[in-house]
Amino acid sequence: MIYFNCDYNEGAHEKVMERLCMTNMDQTIGYGEDEYCEQARNVIRGLCRDDSLMVQFLVGGTQANMTVIAAALKSYQGVLSADTGHINVHETGAVESTGHKVIALPAVDGKISAEQVEHAYLSHIENDSFEHEVQPKMVYISNPTELGTIYSKAELEALSQVCRTRGLYLFMDGARLGYGLTSRENDLDLEAIAKLCDVFYIGGTKVGALFGEAVVISHPALKEDFRYMIKQKGGMLAKGRLLGVQFQALLEDGLYFEISRHANELAEDIRSACRKAGYPFLVESPTNQIFVILPDDKLEELQKEYSFCYQERVDETHSAVRICTSWATSRENVQKLVDDILG
Amino acid sequence: MIYFNCDYNEGAHEKVMERLCMTNMDQTIGYGEDEYCEQARNVIRGLCRDDSLMVQFLVGGTQANMTVIAAALKSYQGVLSADTGHINVHETGAVESTGHKVIALPAVDGKISAEQVEHAYLSHIENDSFEHEVQPKMVYISNPTELGTIYSKAELEALSQVCRTRGLYLFMDGARLGYGLTSRENDLDLEAIAKLCDVFYIGGTKVGALFGEAVVISHPALKEDFRYMIKQKGGMLAKGRLLGVQFQALLEDGLYFEISRHANELAEDIRSACRKAGYPFLVESPTNQIFVILPDDKLEELQKEYSFCYQERVDETHSAVRICTSWATSRENVQKLVDDILG
Amino acid sequence: MIYFNCDYNEGAHEKVMERLCMTNMDQTIGYGEDEYCEQARNVIRGLCRDDSLMVQFLVGGTQANMTVIAAALKSYQGVLSADTGHINVHETGAVESTGHKVIALPAVDGKISAEQVEHAYLSHIENDSFEHEVQPKMVYISNPTELGTIYSKAELEALSQVCRTRGLYLFMDGARLGYGLTSRENDLDLEAIAKLCDVFYIGGTKVGALFGEAVVISHPALKEDFRYMIKQKGGMLAKGRLLGVQFQALLEDGLYFEISRHANELAEDIRSACRKAGYPFLVESPTNQIFVILPDDKLEELQKEYSFCYQERVDETHSAVRICTSWATSRENVQKLVDDILG
Amino acid sequence: MIYFNCDYNEGAHEKVMERLCMTNMDQTIGYGEDEYCEQARNVIRGLCRDDSLMVQFLVGGTQANMTVIAAALKSYQGVLSADTGHINVHETGAVESTGHKVIALPAVDGKISAEQVEHAYLSHIENDSFEHEVQPKMVYISNPTELGTIYSKAELEALSQVCRTRGLYLFMDGARLGYGLTSRENDLDLEAIAKLCDVFYIGGTKVGALFGEAVVISHPALKEDFRYMIKQKGGMLAKGRLLGVQFQALLEDGLYFEISRHANELAEDIRSACRKAGYPFLVESPTNQIFVILPDDKLEELQKEYSFCYQERVDETHSAVRICTSWATSRENVQKLVDDILG
Repeated sequence: MIYFNCDYNEGAHEKVMERLCMTNMDQTIGYGEDEYCEQARNVIRGLCRDDSLMVQFLVGGTQANMTVIAAALKSYQGVLSADTGHINVHETGAVESTGHKVIALPAVDGKISAEQVEHAYLSHIENDSFEHEVQPKMVYISNPTELGTIYSKAELEALSQVCRTRGLYLFMDGARLGYGLTSRENDLDLEAIAKLCDVFYIGGTKVGALFGEAVVISHPALKEDFRYMIKQKGGMLAKGRLLGVQFQALLEDGLYFEISRHANELAEDIRSACRKAGYPFLVESPTNQIFVILPDDKLEELQKEYSFCYQERVDETHSAVRICTSWATSRENVQKLVDDILG
Repeated sequence: MIYFNCDYNEGAHEKVMERLCMTNMDQTIGYGEDEYCEQARNVIRGLCRDDSLMVQFLVGGTQANMTVIAAALKSYQGVLSADTGHINVHETGAVESTGHKVIALPAVDGKISAEQVEHAYLSHIENDSFEHEVQPKMVYISNPTELGTIYSKAELEALSQVCRTRGLYLFMDGARLGYGLTSRENDLDLEAIAKLCDVFYIGGTKVGALFGEAVVISHPALKEDFRYMIKQKGGMLAKGRLLGVQFQALLEDGLYFEISRHANELAEDIRSACRKAGYPFLVESPTNQIFVILPDDKLEELQKEYSFCYQERVDETHSAVRICTSWATSRENVQKLVDDILG
Repeated sequence: MIYFNCDYNEGAHEKVMERLCMTNMDQTIGYGEDEYCEQARNVIRGLCRDDSLMVQFLVGGTQANMTVIAAALKSYQGVLSADTGHINVHETGAVESTGHKVIALPAVDGKISAEQVEHAYLSHIENDSFEHEVQPKMVYISNPTELGTIYSKAELEALSQVCRTRGLYLFMDGARLGYGLTSRENDLDLEAIAKLCDVFYIGGTKVGALFGEAVVISHPALKEDFRYMIKQKGGMLAKGRLLGVQFQALLEDGLYFEISRHANELAEDIRSACRKAGYPFLVESPTNQIFVILPDDKLEELQKEYSFCYQERVDETHSAVRICTSWATSRENVQKLVDDILG
Repeated sequence: MIYFNCDYNEGAHEKVMERLCMTNMDQTIGYGEDEYCEQARNVIRGLCRDDSLMVQFLVGGTQANMTVIAAALKSYQGVLSADTGHINVHETGAVESTGHKVIALPAVDGKISAEQVEHAYLSHIENDSFEHEVQPKMVYISNPTELGTIYSKAELEALSQVCRTRGLYLFMDGARLGYGLTSRENDLDLEAIAKLCDVFYIGGTKVGALFGEAVVISHPALKEDFRYMIKQKGGMLAKGRLLGVQFQALLEDGLYFEISRHANELAEDIRSACRKAGYPFLVESPTNQIFVILPDDKLEELQKEYSFCYQERVDETHSAVRICTSWATSRENVQKLVDDILG
């Protein structure tokens, strides 16, 4: 069976593993206050061109989302999110378990707009009984989204502007950020994201690391005491240096972007094959996730050799699946899949 | 200014006040374990024709909702609700603040159907990554709904059946239950509700009491240790007998239903006047809440003397408002309003 | 049976009831934004000689405690309290249910000192792994305490000073404040308390009202959005005016203090009788609660006619009980008890 | 600087790293449902001689503690713990942040007894106002404790018996379990622990793994839906196989016990040196943690080359420190330290 069902089927990139092995018996202090973490922090600050950023490393995405959101919000405040957002549908109510409502907005291709945020804000404050409603205080977006789409610089600027005008925090979930930043349609970079968002993270788990998400905080109010939150929410790794070592390996020489580009190119090969075969897409996505609609018999045939992520039934004879490439996907497996799609 | 904006503008029915004054200097033990509460419990058990019911008295609706829901659900479980449901929009995230997601279903006229519940349940268990989603475990409905509509016996039976088949608790918010049970369209009674629901409450705050909601629990799992939850969530009234005294006054001789019927009749008078004047309704409701669409100039004129609850802008020249009658509404004020609507 | 077991056995003072009846059919807006509440707020601001105070009315003490504490603290912050404090032992973990640790300090006669607070603060910040501990951010005291003792002005000033120096909020639970302020040993008044504390409440439930606690907030950070918290925690009374009306009746002409003094005087009569009979006290308390140690046979005899609150077994032949007087206690019943103690 | 301050200064045992490298590019499904995890589960079930055990792998100790406790308790229930217990003092209120009170019992050398648990249970149920208190429902112990002491089989049997009689869950935090089970004073084994506890974990982070705790659940009620809890609390590792691979390497051939024994032996060498030098111990501990009281000048001298964990000031000229050995500690470093202690 060849797995195209997600982007975390393998371990870590060989250079990451090498670095972990090389530093394995070094003695360091714990909890992310070691030298490796500090070096990785500086690499990230350099890439974002902002020395004042706080960088904290967490193990996983749900953990990062719940910790950031719970740290930012007061008890009666909620977070605006696309209804398809990871926090709204795939985290077993982790945000709610910290006491906060996820206020879902209807997404278009996984994205929400500045206008929707402005409207939600105004609806709240113009309501006579506003104290009887959750107060919106943060906007959560993912980039790429759960549907593989990405925000343009103009869209992110518009979101950032409404958030700053209205006193909302802007938070970008970058679990797949590498695949977004190296998409051929992308016009964002880390510097712009660090400027436009109040907090975001650079995802490692799905982009070459064994695990790890680098949370980057620019808003001063969100920096305060953030490490207490990491500890309380169970996210403070004893051997924190494991995270620093991995992000250093991924980011100091551009490996992160190189392997992301690789995944996007292979995804494009699969996408082209689908187009050539006449299979439409559930959503047009320019990153490593392909949402294609296949005839059921074709799907059944492919599933003998390949694992995909089932999405939904489209009509009586068609289903949508997600096909994922990643930093670890081989050209050979993609070529074989392309042949079988076209075959 | 004459208030028609809600059904809690006045204090309590005179017979309730009399009883409170009469028992005022009696010494009783606290926390709802006194004789008055016990008598009121027995009256309610009698009306429901079920001696095994647990009855606990709480002060208000949001408190009752959050206490019941938090008592019923485990950390990773959520409650299905109409998107217009009180817990979803008017309680400042009280349910989420206890750690639970409100899973909103699109309502029709404030109601949700057995089919929607079945679909939500099946979507969850048929999902490959079901553990990554909140597990639906309770269905919350309000009767009458926030839009003044009511569930028929057939609808409630269908909901009850799917809940029992699927292991979900069925919870009815009866903040305005009196107005529902005395609606001319109603075919439910307390006995049927107690049988079909696992827990519900008989609202006092909006139907003749100073305050108070009588929570009636039939499901054994929900009875266990429920009083710990009342205390923890801040709802255990020191002088609990105040609740017992009021519900006894309201329920022992049918006063509750009599004053509810009064409100419904007056609402019908207003509704007829609106119809006669050609004003359409946002929703057809057979209880004490009237959702009428008025021309803006007419609304402006009426607002000089009357207070309504603004709902929404309908088009450039029309707005929807809620007009409420209650146990306390006088025929004189309604007649005056009818004249002014028609005038 | 004559009840001396607590100070909430009866309803409300007759003047409070009169006022509730008198205003019963007035139409007001809800949720504490009516005129009666506004007038009561102004009375309280006047008594505290501070027009900038926020005053919000809640129904009960546990509700007030959890709402204030949850509003003040961030997720990783905790509240310092006497180990005998109400929030630590008698509220079913209400504070913890909002996510916050109660950090218990060993109390002397129900009280904690400025030195203990300073020590707890320093222990935390001087700890190398401080982020692994709950951050102390609020000090909770009750006055009178659960043991009937009171804080002197000097003690409160010392607590206030350490709190302000260390950035901690000082919160006084005044569920029995009337009995404290009219104790013959007291040297505090509302003005001093409002200056020295960041938030406190004037208890009504135990001092002449049917129910109600007037939360008085002086610290600007605690005022912000406090009403959202009241609603979310289930404490926003629909007919909020019931609270305003009661506090107006109690406070505008000094009734609150008059009836508190009455209870203290009667308590002193009982205390004298105990002394005369040679019964020692578990703790010396100058307010309406008497903690006396009785021989078991004497206790058994008294319990045939009187209800007390059992405290603890002291030795093989003695037990401690709490005897409470209140605004509602009659001289006749006290005289009878005194005779029976001495008899 | 040579680190003796904790037992997580290095990465993982070389055999663990080898296995991680060897399996690195294998494709597996995520979230701990892969073959490696299944094999590790079976190894653990074999060691515990119970095929019915649920085994789930979590990343860290705080995460394991909060997830297990939150999964086990209802909202109004609390967990009994030694006052020195990790959950009570070193987890930033993680348990409270899930809504539950940690009910602290005074520990003797880090341990609590069956008598204390029985007493706490009886105090609660015999209290007239038990519903106003947190209901004790779980007992948390750590073995070894935070002070390096261990429970004997007789002590654990007594705790288990009272828990079963009183309907309490018994939970053992085994973050350092290897060091406990290989202590020369130990008479427990995994089979006994699995029988006597309802849930426990085998700590990997401090005993040879990069990270990881294997939670072993025997009580049926605690197994139900436990994976929802892992996900909700942020503990579900995408590449779950990393945990399975490590525990397989550690446990399938006894490596875990071998390296634990190594650490205990080296600790004994240090302990002997301290005894010989006349330095007393804060607590007698038979595992890898040594709590020794040193003269301040000696400590200052040692700290030039060694890092210890400062515990507390003992008197004007003495301080207590914790010296830790681990699986990774070298004989050379210990010999050098021994020489310097004696020198």
